[in-house]
Amino acid sequence: MFKKVLIANRGEIALRIIRACKELGIRTVAIYCEPDATARYVKKADEAYLVTPGPLRGYLNIYGIVELAKNAGCDAIHPGYGFLAENPQFAEACAQAGITFIGPNSKAIRKMGLKDEARKIAQELGIPLLPGTPPLNSLDEAVKSADEIGYPVMIKATAGGGGRGLRICYDEESLRRQIPIAMSEAKKAFGDERVFIEKYLERPHHIEIQIMADKYGNMVHLGERDCSIQRRHQKLIEIAPSLLLPERIRCEMGEAAKKLAYAVGYDNVGTVEFLVDESLNYYFLEMNTRIQVEHTITEEITGIDLVQNMIKIAYGEPLNIKQYEVTLSGYAIQCRINAEDPLNDFLPSTGIVTAYYSPGGFGIRIDGHVTEGYHVPPYYDSLLAKLVARGRTWDEVVRRMHRALSEYVIRGVKTTIPLYIKIMEDEDFRKGNFSTKYIEEKLHSLLYTEEKDPFDLAVILSAAIVAHSRV
Amino acid sequence: MFKKVLIANRGEIALRIIRACKELGIRTVAIYCEPDATARYVKKADEAYLVTPGPLRGYLNIYGIVELAKNAGCDAIHPGYGFLAENPQFAEACAQAGITFIGPNSKAIRKMGLKDEARKIAQELGIPLLPGTPPLNSLDEAVKSADEIGYPVMIKATAGGGGRGLRICYDEESLRRQIPIAMSEAKKAFGDERVFIEKYLERPHHIEIQIMADKYGNMVHLGERDCSIQRRHQKLIEIAPSLLLPERIRCEMGEAAKKLAYAVGYDNVGTVEFLVDESLNYYFLEMNTRIQVEHTITEEITGIDLVQNMIKIAYGEPLNIKQYEVTLSGYAIQCRINAEDPLNDFLPSTGIVTAYYSPGGFGIRIDGHVTEGYHVPPYYDSLLAKLVARGRTWDEVVRRMHRALSEYVIRGVKTTIPLYIKIMEDEDFRKGNFSTKYIEEKLHSLLYTEEKDPFDLAVILSAAIVAHSRV
Repeated sequence: MFKKVLIANRGEIALRIIRACKELGIRTVAIYCEPDATARYVKKADEAYLVTPGPLRGYLNIYGIVELAKNAGCDAIHPGYGFLAENPQFAEACAQAGITFIGPNSKAIRKMGLKDEARKIAQELGIPLLPGTPPLNSLDEAVKSADEIGYPVMIKATAGGGGRGLRICYDEESLRRQIPIAMSEAKKAFGDERVFIEKYLERPHHIEIQIMADKYGNMVHLGERDCSIQRRHQKLIEIAPSLLLPERIRCEMGEAAKKLAYAVGYDNVGTVEFLVDESLNYYFLEMNTRIQVEHTITEEITGIDLVQNMIKIAYGEPLNIKQYEVTLSGYAIQCRINAEDPLNDFLPSTGIVTAYYSPGGFGIRIDGHVTEGYHVPPYYDSLLAKLVARGRTWDEVVRRMHRALSEYVIRGVKTTIPLYIKIMEDEDFRKGNFSTKYIEEKLHSLLYTEEKDPFDLAVILSAAIVAHSRV
Repeated sequence: MFKKVLIANRGEIALRIIRACKELGIRTVAIYCEPDATARYVKKADEAYLVTPGPLRGYLNIYGIVELAKNAGCDAIHPGYGFLAENPQFAEACAQAGITFIGPNSKAIRKMGLKDEARKIAQELGIPLLPGTPPLNSLDEAVKSADEIGYPVMIKATAGGGGRGLRICYDEESLRRQIPIAMSEAKKAFGDERVFIEKYLERPHHIEIQIMADKYGNMVHLGERDCSIQRRHQKLIEIAPSLLLPERIRCEMGEAAKKLAYAVGYDNVGTVEFLVDESLNYYFLEMNTRIQVEHTITEEITGIDLVQNMIKIAYGEPLNIKQYEVTLSGYAIQCRINAEDPLNDFLPSTGIVTAYYSPGGFGIRIDGHVTEGYHVPPYYDSLLAKLVARGRTWDEVVRRMHRALSEYVIRGVKTTIPLYIKIMEDEDFRKGNFSTKYIEEKLHSLLYTEEKDPFDLAVILSAAIVAHSRV
């Protein structure tokens, strides 16, 4: 097994990887930029080194990080998610330095990273895609295609990504009006005015299949996660397994995901994302060639440690499980506890955590990196902790998550906890009536009255007393 | 379902029961004596009331507690473990007040509470007991019986209990010498000089079967727990399932436990305790008619919430599981994190917890009631938290527990954490080579060098600086 692994990431996922390494008897090296100098994951690693330049670019400094790993005597690097996790150049730089990149081979990363290429491969394999067009040459061509596809359709920039510049058209008039605007916006934003259109699903579920493959052609899928509860394409709550899929569709999607991964010679954990409509038609979206934030819920229902498996696979161990041995038992929910204000358009909330008590007990898991006194920095994503509940039934896990959220105390910054409490109480959520539109459509009915932070209250009262005594 | 439950207990088990109630939508009432006024479980209950008189006797005040429950409008009381949990008078006082006691019926509590009675019932059912005698009338009778039973034998006081006054004899000479001493001690300690002898097992495993029965004659056993890692008959580390038992013996012991419970009309969760020798002979010890501290590990490997089931059964719900549906998957370990000093004969350590960071991540559960600033009171048992790990294999769960223990930070009081780290590293433990003698026999080889508490260090250094500057 590897002797020493550098973790090219920060926050909760760095701590998650440190834990997996410790359980495998591997020494760990953390890296940090200045704002993370006192972070918990830094303390929990066996060694830690500052990376430069700057709070964000340090974590993206490919050659600096590889150099550091070499000097520290690491034989492998785990990239986590985000930052350099899906950067094929990073994987190649590791290889050149004789250090194992804990993830799939760089060719597979590269192929799946080009979203057009990935769609082409899927199409050749007969995996359903949302009906769409190549880049359009004229307005009339767009109208003709939209008629064939059927409204509503979505205009997308060829060079776009991350949900930016999407426009939805419900009829020809709207399409004719919006295509020129979309092209001029795309030109401005990406330097490329080309756009194409794609079928728009109104209330789809975002469902993704977790796969796990070794270097010897062995592969399993570990069921699916329903990640439909999103705001602005960012996942908030994830569920495993989906309440929507019958076993037949689960198997079909699982096999489709494996076929795709085989086609690119995939060799680690990965996720194949689909949209699923109410009639259970599924459409390939993209593949993520890394560990995902929501891998926890798959671990809970399968009992399989995905991060440990990533490390073992990268080291060259064969998979120790076959498809028929994979069982999904019970249900799991993950809530992303973000430092942001749901009452104020999910505005990030920075500052110092003045009180922190996390829930516990049966069926509760916390992957967090925050303690009292933690200063939420403005540079990174707002994830403070992942609260995961598991239970034998859907009803049990919803009740358990509700209980755990009510127990959670985080003061000093605003969090998504009160919103999630409302969601757990919501009849539609409890009945499985939700799509990717859930938050957008229901936010108004999920509002809550904010509890006054006792610390803030003390400050306000003290100020009032001082003001009064000066009169 | 019940509307409001009073929890007649404190600490982690009070919090455990509050959590179960919340998940079932039941309101909770906590009780507390003065030292617990600021305790976490008190804050987490919907209501909380002071009980008198005094820090210990308050929790034992049967009529005060029942009165309080009536006045608060509770329809049930959960006794937890210890205090009034196995007191049939308490169960009867509840019944008289029209309040449901969440536990078995008082007749079953009473029958199993009389240890002689319990042994008699077991004997009639053909459940193996340790070979032993009735109270002895003469020294010659003792010698004759010991010859029949085979040495070593143990001399026990008829009126004794809790491991007090036990004497072990390896031969006739020792027996003849010790019987008169034991009798005179028994007279002094219990006012009753009668003694009897029993076969003494040198290195047994303490193995107990968890059962669960409803009011309608449905009953399952949920496998066993190996609680052999003890010091002075107090459990420190528990394991489920046992590494020792083959499936055949597990089933046999499970059926024996159920037979015993049927015989006394048992109707809630309960535990039947056995000693098991190296040849897999098992001997009935006693039955505990309550939830046990170590119920957590059975929950982890079965997925069944025992405390929720206690409440449902007491309310009159039938069991929703059959024996063939019970599956044990993977392994679980519980470490009792006690405020005591293993380097100093497990002396209780009181004081203020100056730092507290609990571990998390996959497979880790914490049932605790302590936060930074908690003052460990001298009146109660020294349990701060229960750290529970689960994993697919024995090797995985030991590594996971080791990792979690290493992550645990509790400062200000001494704890059993460093001892447990050594145990997780011990080859004998890892191989399953342990009996109830493990701690006694191995403690010397599990010693560790104490890490200096940074807070203490700061105080020492400051004092040194002050002293020096005064010169």
